[in-house]
Amino acid sequence: MSSDGLIGAVEAGGTKFVLALATQAGEVLARTRMPTNSPVETWPAMQAFFTQASAEHGPIAAFGVASFGPIDIDPASPAYGTFTTTPKPGWSGARFHEALGGFGAPIMVDTDVNGAAIGEWMEGAGQGCRTLAYTTIGTGIGTGVVHNGRSLMGISHFESGHIVPPRDAVRDPFPGICPYHGDCLEGLACGPAIERRWGKSLDQLGAEEINLIAGYIAHLAATLVLLHMPDRLIFGGGVMKAPGLVEAVRRETASRLNGYVSHPRLDEGLNSYIVTPGLGDDAGITGAIELGRQALATG
Amino acid sequence: MSSDGLIGAVEAGGTKFVLALATQAGEVLARTRMPTNSPVETWPAMQAFFTQASAEHGPIAAFGVASFGPIDIDPASPAYGTFTTTPKPGWSGARFHEALGGFGAPIMVDTDVNGAAIGEWMEGAGQGCRTLAYTTIGTGIGTGVVHNGRSLMGISHFESGHIVPPRDAVRDPFPGICPYHGDCLEGLACGPAIERRWGKSLDQLGAEEINLIAGYIAHLAATLVLLHMPDRLIFGGGVMKAPGLVEAVRRETASRLNGYVSHPRLDEGLNSYIVTPGLGDDAGITGAIELGRQALATG
Repeated sequence: MSSDGLIGAVEAGGTKFVLALATQAGEVLARTRMPTNSPVETWPAMQAFFTQASAEHGPIAAFGVASFGPIDIDPASPAYGTFTTTPKPGWSGARFHEALGGFGAPIMVDTDVNGAAIGEWMEGAGQGCRTLAYTTIGTGIGTGVVHNGRSLMGISHFESGHIVPPRDAVRDPFPGICPYHGDCLEGLACGPAIERRWGKSLDQLGAEEINLIAGYIAHLAATLVLLHMPDRLIFGGGVMKAPGLVEAVRRETASRLNGYVSHPRLDEGLNSYIVTPGLGDDAGITGAIELGRQALATG
Repeated sequence: MSSDGLIGAVEAGGTKFVLALATQAGEVLARTRMPTNSPVETWPAMQAFFTQASAEHGPIAAFGVASFGPIDIDPASPAYGTFTTTPKPGWSGARFHEALGGFGAPIMVDTDVNGAAIGEWMEGAGQGCRTLAYTTIGTGIGTGVVHNGRSLMGISHFESGHIVPPRDAVRDPFPGICPYHGDCLEGLACGPAIERRWGKSLDQLGAEEINLIAGYIAHLAATLVLLHMPDRLIFGGGVMKAPGLVEAVRRETASRLNGYVSHPRLDEGLNSYIVTPGLGDDAGITGAIELGRQALATG
């Protein structure tokens, strides 16, 4: 790994980009945010930031990008770093390498949720975990699984929001809002599904609604345990801010596992096993800096 | 990796052990099988086979073990290779290293299903897959996920049999047989659950029963896709031999995914995506030989 040179970090969200220039030790030397317009506007603005910050602080040795999607995150793919079929105008076919390739530095691109997972693993609630699962429950639902600091993927990034929980149609007759699956997890428990079902966000609702949504999230938690056996599960995103929700998710997950998985990591009550994020809004950019380090290590 | 020296391979099943001495290229020089008695009998018999085979063919450079469980498969654990809480008399606390340590060769231990997954990846229906999920549907249900030839694990091996599928209690009022979860996948769809529900094995039943069980297996298939994104899914084990079952699993999985995951690997009809094993009964010992190679490479 090169011992000098700075890291350009990009957290690309659906509404805003956060950009940072940092040392390899993680000290942020320059930082900005800008709205997510079309690439015709966003690419030059991003280039301008890194050009100016680099002129001031020094050359850039690598870029790390944690981005909204869908996006190709397979380093072995010719389309690595390219947005695929996003409905966001202008972004389908846009590629981070077009915008950043001129700096001549290696680029590592991952999803926003994988980036946040890596950030939490580096400096947040996932420190010391060999396997960490970070899930966001917000406008959508997604999970990043990190093993020894690297995000796992197969032919594509994971899509945990679309697993289908068992449900009681008497207790919850709402058919779900997923255009593909109706009542998959995202269709039942993402922020917009909650708004559509009850006309309010979860933090404005009561224990009955909290427990219902907690049960769906706990289905994902138990499934992640059985299929990834993480050291810890982090649940973040806007929906998770509803008071009492994480406690209810712990109870419902313990009930579903019913003692089957016995390991010191799964403490009584799951209080240290299922947690909320440690970094808040900084997880994404922290993860993007680490992706830049990984780009340097990989070459 | 040492270029000479032979590999001792052990496929340890609940009813029989298969032992082989092979070259690093995979040529089997000696092979035997013996019943799974208590370790007091099985360990000396296993030592005797390897001692004699080694005297005849040459020194053993590494051992690979694919074993029934539950067993500690974490190379970083002090109890690596030790059976944990198995109800099988005499086996709790028994450790492969006790029996094989005297040969002075590195030992890699994995689960039986991970071993079969690695075998199928090496020489069977999973060749060429970067990520492969191999599931056995038999007396129990389990999945091994192999990434670049290595099995994935977290704090323990995976336990895919215990995920809970949605179900229609009118269509299937059977409460399931899992002592922990009742109607988890294994509780509903393993061989003994089928026998308990209908008094027959699945190959003696009709299309209605096949389709019901296929739906449960397809829930696992779709969940594996969403949480591991494998290049291919292999389904083996006694239950999968029921005529028409794999075809029904393909149909039910396609119906559940509903086009959400778009990738060339997921062909129309999933005929090349969801397949049965290529090696049959030899997957386990083939995987154990590869585990021995991995022990050599790891040192």
